[in-house]
Amino acid sequence: MREIETVLHPDWVWTEEGPRSGVSVVLTNEIVQLSSAVDHPRAVRLSGKLLLPGFVNAHSHAFQRAIRGHVQWTRDAASDFWTWRDRMYAAANGLSPEGIEAVSRLAFLEMLEAGFTTVGEFHYLHRQADGTPYADPDELARRVIAAALDVGIRIALLRVVYARGGIDVPLGPTQQRFRTDTPDEALAAVARLASHPDPRVTAGLAPHSVRAVPRDWLSELATFAGPVHAHVSEQPAEVRDTLAATGLTPLALLDAHGLVTDRFTAVHLTHPTPDDLARMRRGGARICVCPTTELDLGDGLLPVEAREGIGLCLGTDSHARIDALEEARSLEMHARALAGRRNVMSPPGDRHGLAERLLRALTVEGARALGLPGGAVRVGAPADLVAIDLDRPAAFGVPPLEAAVFAGTPEWVSDVWVGGQHVVVDGRHPARDRVLAAAAPYLRQVAG
Amino acid sequence: MREIETVLHPDWVWTEEGPRSGVSVVLTNEIVQLSSAVDHPRAVRLSGKLLLPGFVNAHSHAFQRAIRGHVQWTRDAASDFWTWRDRMYAAANGLSPEGIEAVSRLAFLEMLEAGFTTVGEFHYLHRQADGTPYADPDELARRVIAAALDVGIRIALLRVVYARGGIDVPLGPTQQRFRTDTPDEALAAVARLASHPDPRVTAGLAPHSVRAVPRDWLSELATFAGPVHAHVSEQPAEVRDTLAATGLTPLALLDAHGLVTDRFTAVHLTHPTPDDLARMRRGGARICVCPTTELDLGDGLLPVEAREGIGLCLGTDSHARIDALEEARSLEMHARALAGRRNVMSPPGDRHGLAERLLRALTVEGARALGLPGGAVRVGAPADLVAIDLDRPAAFGVPPLEAAVFAGTPEWVSDVWVGGQHVVVDGRHPARDRVLAAAAPYLRQVAG
Repeated sequence: MREIETVLHPDWVWTEEGPRSGVSVVLTNEIVQLSSAVDHPRAVRLSGKLLLPGFVNAHSHAFQRAIRGHVQWTRDAASDFWTWRDRMYAAANGLSPEGIEAVSRLAFLEMLEAGFTTVGEFHYLHRQADGTPYADPDELARRVIAAALDVGIRIALLRVVYARGGIDVPLGPTQQRFRTDTPDEALAAVARLASHPDPRVTAGLAPHSVRAVPRDWLSELATFAGPVHAHVSEQPAEVRDTLAATGLTPLALLDAHGLVTDRFTAVHLTHPTPDDLARMRRGGARICVCPTTELDLGDGLLPVEAREGIGLCLGTDSHARIDALEEARSLEMHARALAGRRNVMSPPGDRHGLAERLLRALTVEGARALGLPGGAVRVGAPADLVAIDLDRPAAFGVPPLEAAVFAGTPEWVSDVWVGGQHVVVDGRHPARDRVLAAAAPYLRQVAG
Repeated sequence: MREIETVLHPDWVWTEEGPRSGVSVVLTNEIVQLSSAVDHPRAVRLSGKLLLPGFVNAHSHAFQRAIRGHVQWTRDAASDFWTWRDRMYAAANGLSPEGIEAVSRLAFLEMLEAGFTTVGEFHYLHRQADGTPYADPDELARRVIAAALDVGIRIALLRVVYARGGIDVPLGPTQQRFRTDTPDEALAAVARLASHPDPRVTAGLAPHSVRAVPRDWLSELATFAGPVHAHVSEQPAEVRDTLAATGLTPLALLDAHGLVTDRFTAVHLTHPTPDDLARMRRGGARICVCPTTELDLGDGLLPVEAREGIGLCLGTDSHARIDALEEARSLEMHARALAGRRNVMSPPGDRHGLAERLLRALTVEGARALGLPGGAVRVGAPADLVAIDLDRPAAFGVPPLEAAVFAGTPEWVSDVWVGGQHVVVDGRHPARDRVLAAAAPYLRQVAG
């Protein structure tokens, strides 16, 4: 990491005290000073721009970028979550290690250009399609990490544990690539990945779901001391089946084995019971909501209203779109649709306004979910920053945070820094053409 | 209108037969030929671009652009649709005729840059704030029309009838600006506006809602022979109050007076009864859905699933955002959220795929709602066209219609033609700076 000092002087900065103007941000690989000396001789003037902490994408399956536009609609009458999954499996099994790396690199580049500086990659491709391990058992995880480092995004590799095809159902022939044979196999892999020499790489553990992980593995997995993520109650069928088999909801089952702690993130939790929410609060756990994917898959809308006191973070999950600000505002907008009223997430007396609350889900809450220190423009935080260009008709006359949060698109992102490195310049990653060209044959292969 | 011939050669064009490549579009003020002679000597090459019919914004209150970002959230505990309306009224009453023109011009410019070539302006500002008529009773309608023509958007002025503050409630002091004293006053105004010499200007009639129009006016209003739009069942309170006062739902009340015909568009209809939907089908009427506004206001989600056989068009309504493709995809995405399944709007056997069905709501269905002939790339249609730039990472490897519909943003719009005039060039309207500068003092005034 370089130690050259950069001074940024945007029109507005969102600090922990709220939006501010007349503030410069001095950075090396971390933020070293917030200064009112706006005439600093080396200041880079970010005219018309709002500087925010880099966005955190807390739930990603990077390879699924390959099926964008091919699965949003099918002529199949029964098209639902499970038929979508079949098509996704076909892509998962068809890609070579090189293909997984190339498609992941494209997804990460698109994330950076959309303002994400960190990705939590929920990684479940471990073996060859027939279940044979690679010579290096971490081959595919290392491919994904290499893709991230190549384009310069911070990555938390959430190593998935996947051992069966459903409750008391063995893995099917299309699920062999995901296979983990023992809890130890997963814990050892996480330990190896966590020792990566690049400080932008960290690792966590991801029991895929209570569908995919045997009950008698859960207590051993709960010994892991880092961040733990799991898909929980995305579909009503999962809740029904788990209740029938165990008498517990998926979340209660995880909690019974000690997994629901302040290091735990429940991905989706679209269909929680009141008891589930009480357990989440008690454990200090977080929910990772993936609004655009949940809409696309017909999962339903999250009852945000019931989730007071539980931290929310965000993910672009299947990458049907990669639009950080759309995910953020959807939290409140979907909550309004369910509640039939406005101002759901920022009740009266809230220290944060609504725009700030939604930005927190996209930044500091996401960082916490991944066990990372960032997510704020604060001295000592990593210099992960995004500049939003508000010099456009859609933002004209609109307060800066509200413009970005309620109307912003990925194209409003002009510049991005990760650990002080200027990775997106004027809306463009310098490796764009190379990354697209390398992904092209694999996208064609998946499109069939 | 000019008669100079232009030849456009995009990579893809969406015709009535589906997406096509290798087709040039020859146009004057209308489309005169679809040609496979791609090497036409005067062809303008639109490389990497998808050419679509111009989008139709079938429901707009242009002046509400002034309150964007100031009303998405308040610290008021009771913040709901009705408190939002109070703040909107304050803006409506505070703007001078010049201010209304300047803010409308900004909204129309933003629409053009987002690919809208036609706006249905549901116009309810008629008088001075205290109810005194202007010397020209059409003063404010003419201001809005002038704003549209200045930036070059086609406008259907839907002249609103507003005569009371609620069922059996007189107009309040903040509603005097909207006042119409007799049905004749409205019908005469529509007739005057419809005779505008510019062919881009048409007019229709808009009984605001059954809240705002006396029952004994409805039969006379039903004598109008052009397009009729009304707000219907946006909020549960409206349905409840109308049922209590009349024994009928708002839609049934309009139908009982002969208003629900194939020239009728029900705006919102978020809370319909099965009988409402049967009446809509019987009359051949359409629903104008305004997804982003309905989310913002906490109206609820439309039960699209129940609306088979009823045409859907789209509007950006309050202009919390102006994003045509987001409105379009929201139709299906919200339908999925309610239905708990995928593929709601494009069932098996549908001749159109889902992307085409959503694009139809944004084009030909909107044109029909406004009584206009456009909305398709077809010989003889007005040359209202929008080019979508797919040369970007987010669209890479994605089929063109699916890329635009499921991931597109306003910034993907590169060029726009209205009646053959090239009004947006490379993502920018040439009058942008002038239009923003003229709106600035009024936006500051409204922000307070």
